[in-house]
Amino acid sequence: MQSFKKEFVTFLRNLQDIICQTIEQEDTSGIFKEEKWERPEGGGGRTRIISEGAVFEKGGVNTSEVSGILPPSMMDYLNVENNEFFACGLSLVLHPKNPNVPTVHANYRYFELYDSEGNIIDHWFGGGSDLTPYYLIDEDVIHFHQILKNESDRFDKTYYSKYKSACDNYFYNHHRKEARGIGGLFYDYLRSNKKEPNHWFNFVTAQAGIFLESYIPIVKKNKNIAFSNNEKKWQEIRRGRYVEFNLIHDKGTLFGLKTNGRIESIFMSLPPTVRWDYNHSPQVGSREYELLNVLKNPKDWI
Amino acid sequence: MQSFKKEFVTFLRNLQDIICQTIEQEDTSGIFKEEKWERPEGGGGRTRIISEGAVFEKGGVNTSEVSGILPPSMMDYLNVENNEFFACGLSLVLHPKNPNVPTVHANYRYFELYDSEGNIIDHWFGGGSDLTPYYLIDEDVIHFHQILKNESDRFDKTYYSKYKSACDNYFYNHHRKEARGIGGLFYDYLRSNKKEPNHWFNFVTAQAGIFLESYIPIVKKNKNIAFSNNEKKWQEIRRGRYVEFNLIHDKGTLFGLKTNGRIESIFMSLPPTVRWDYNHSPQVGSREYELLNVLKNPKDWI
Repeated sequence: MQSFKKEFVTFLRNLQDIICQTIEQEDTSGIFKEEKWERPEGGGGRTRIISEGAVFEKGGVNTSEVSGILPPSMMDYLNVENNEFFACGLSLVLHPKNPNVPTVHANYRYFELYDSEGNIIDHWFGGGSDLTPYYLIDEDVIHFHQILKNESDRFDKTYYSKYKSACDNYFYNHHRKEARGIGGLFYDYLRSNKKEPNHWFNFVTAQAGIFLESYIPIVKKNKNIAFSNNEKKWQEIRRGRYVEFNLIHDKGTLFGLKTNGRIESIFMSLPPTVRWDYNHSPQVGSREYELLNVLKNPKDWI
Repeated sequence: MQSFKKEFVTFLRNLQDIICQTIEQEDTSGIFKEEKWERPEGGGGRTRIISEGAVFEKGGVNTSEVSGILPPSMMDYLNVENNEFFACGLSLVLHPKNPNVPTVHANYRYFELYDSEGNIIDHWFGGGSDLTPYYLIDEDVIHFHQILKNESDRFDKTYYSKYKSACDNYFYNHHRKEARGIGGLFYDYLRSNKKEPNHWFNFVTAQAGIFLESYIPIVKKNKNIAFSNNEKKWQEIRRGRYVEFNLIHDKGTLFGLKTNGRIESIFMSLPPTVRWDYNHSPQVGSREYELLNVLKNPKDWI
């Protein structure tokens, strides 16, 4: 079975550079700080964190390549019998200061599984990107989805709706019966086949390649909109829901914790300042209420 | 099998009144707001929340009595074959404004399990209380442990060290290899026997009865100590670890979510304002560092 390990790692590291440079330009004052780390069991990563920028209050754009032996709980979870693995990915979360700019999350990953002689017995791609607005601005949400859809359609016209639904289903706070955000795309276990071995490599790298185009125009447009203390407070309450999802439901976080990943790199996704007000419920008809309505009933944007 | 349902529920509701009154007196300005709720599957509760008081920034002192059918995941978890249950408890968390006053958590609960004719086939008590300081003041920690120990010793001289260890083991953030706080007592599955059917009822109600004596003197002593913005920030960072424990590891939270408990009542334990700073590490020798040291190496206080 063909390995995409080398090409994909090269692609991810290059993408990490481009994304960080673009985010710094957009921020104008924040600078990414890099920390390289090694995992005792094999592999490591390049964590890049931006803090207290003019536009981004906190964010991380990380790459990692880890390898070794899967713990039994992860073998159960992945439903596999062999346990030597390699996994690499780029994972990013950006938490803007201004509540009019949505938080964005993206992840592009590749996984290989080996037999005892080190031959690849299975491999797959996964990833996606999704948006978490604090205030709903329809044209921004449509822009984000349109860019993802256009690029998906180049590969297969059925992908967008399939992976859009998967995203709505995945980023869902079951305990609150509401979505984390307004979605995007989510795909996993994309296995290459003999006929088109590069199909999924091309699809995932194409999706990764349009990340900046899907997000940066929204940042540019909204980053200077004035906001009140109450709007900031609402953003912090919603950030609490983001924390709840990541710590209770997110399989990426679970994978990181179970495979003894680097805690601070995994938790870079957690927002900088957060609030839990008891039983906060926005006034009927308010902009906050409007957002909740859409989160409780995910809709088609295109 | 004797049921303690009626007496224990009466005890808990009465205790809830006494604790809320005492906390309000100590706070001087905050008032508990009560919300009664019903669970569609059976039972309900009395949630009492204090917010933005002079001393307590957020807190909840809740009682609940729930009954019905255990979901399969909880049957697995409790390792039981019958699934009709009754559970009642008092659960409290108090998050003070001043970082010199520790957060406190306590829980006193009782569980009954029935056969298909409604006969009790098993029942047990559980609970405990533990302290989460932001700055270590040894005499406060010793006071807290001493009160718990004195009351335990009246029942059995071995209980304190047994339940103190259980507490250190339970309130542990495995993913960070540090304790949530400086511990206290934690006990579960305390089953009455024919010889002394009231033993555990007496033990748990005695522990609950000394809760205020273990905590209020610490509040009184420290609530007016001046603190800086940096000390507040440190408190908010540590509150983040509290959130991590409650959402990733806490079995009470899990039980609530799995049995379709009332989300806002379960999440009253989450602190009001929280921070996640990337890779925050206190300076060697600082008071913050000193706290971390003790959390990484739980110690005997008495």
